[in-house]
Amino acid sequence: MQKNLIENLSKLISRLPGMGPRIAKRIVLQLATNKEKTLQPLIENLQALNDKIHQCEICGNIDEGRVCGICLSESRDKTLLCVVEEIADLWAIERAENYRGKYHVLGGNLSAISGKTIQDLNLESLYSRLRKGEIAEIIIATSATIDGQTTAHFLAENLKDFKIKITRLAYGIPVGSELDYLDEGTISIAFKTRLEF
Amino acid sequence: MQKNLIENLSKLISRLPGMGPRIAKRIVLQLATNKEKTLQPLIENLQALNDKIHQCEICGNIDEGRVCGICLSESRDKTLLCVVEEIADLWAIERAENYRGKYHVLGGNLSAISGKTIQDLNLESLYSRLRKGEIAEIIIATSATIDGQTTAHFLAENLKDFKIKITRLAYGIPVGSELDYLDEGTISIAFKTRLEF
Repeated sequence: MQKNLIENLSKLISRLPGMGPRIAKRIVLQLATNKEKTLQPLIENLQALNDKIHQCEICGNIDEGRVCGICLSESRDKTLLCVVEEIADLWAIERAENYRGKYHVLGGNLSAISGKTIQDLNLESLYSRLRKGEIAEIIIATSATIDGQTTAHFLAENLKDFKIKITRLAYGIPVGSELDYLDEGTISIAFKTRLEF
Repeated sequence: MQKNLIENLSKLISRLPGMGPRIAKRIVLQLATNKEKTLQPLIENLQALNDKIHQCEICGNIDEGRVCGICLSESRDKTLLCVVEEIADLWAIERAENYRGKYHVLGGNLSAISGKTIQDLNLESLYSRLRKGEIAEIIIATSATIDGQTTAHFLAENLKDFKIKITRLAYGIPVGSELDYLDEGTISIAFKTRLEF
């Protein structure tokens, strides 16, 4: 059976996030047997993604055009800048529909394990944005992991010279969770940073 | 944020087998930020799948060309025909590298729940293959589920007139499994169909 093409495609799909060889084959089968309804619209949309979607020159988000909608938006607060690790984090914050400032995507964190260093993060573009003097507050929204916190501390230290307000997201009990199921670290920090009613 | 294109693509991907909205977004992000290494090869391979891969006119498998490699193969036993529900089942049997006959893909099973009937299965093409008189044995390899067994019994009944040998796969203890974790049905059938050493 000459299955090279099918094998190749399965391999490509199996390397995508959350995929594996079995599910990749099921997807290839589904696509091959539903060309008009599934495969062709998928190809068209992937082609459009390739042609139209770019990484924003300013913040690192992806969107149509060279500068993303958030950076272009006049209705968003230019004086607030939220620094995130990945575009997915930006999307998560947007889903919460609460924050109305701008963003900066670092493109990762300082990780000893993956070997990411300061050179791998979009720091130069962050510094040049801050130098323009429009930003009044920078909100560091890196992950609450060791690598995320290392990155946050590094940023906080390096951004001191800009003389702007530097904040970070609050740690504490996640909304909807029961204390019994929470880790000690979260409970301890929630106690330490408790607020008055 | 003008995210229609990204939203559309995420929706298409999330409808594929084993996908969901979260993982679809992660995949879109991965593709959008790795155009040359991931997105473009994927588009090329999907386009090739669309252009070159067809459902085999004889057995219903997918492959390059109008007739699949298995049907064309001279080295495979023409007198053996294995009837499976789906192409995925055919691939599973091929992975075992044991069976060297030909196949016929029904395209589903007789399911009361999904409402699939005799008309929905590739039965006419099966009958016409059998009428040619080359096939000596038909191996019914439908699933060991209620629907699969209903289909097997229907086939066994309907193929009697062709006066060929009709067999089915053996039921029993799966290789590598412990009795303690097996269901009663499997254990019972393994006892009933026990073989002499």
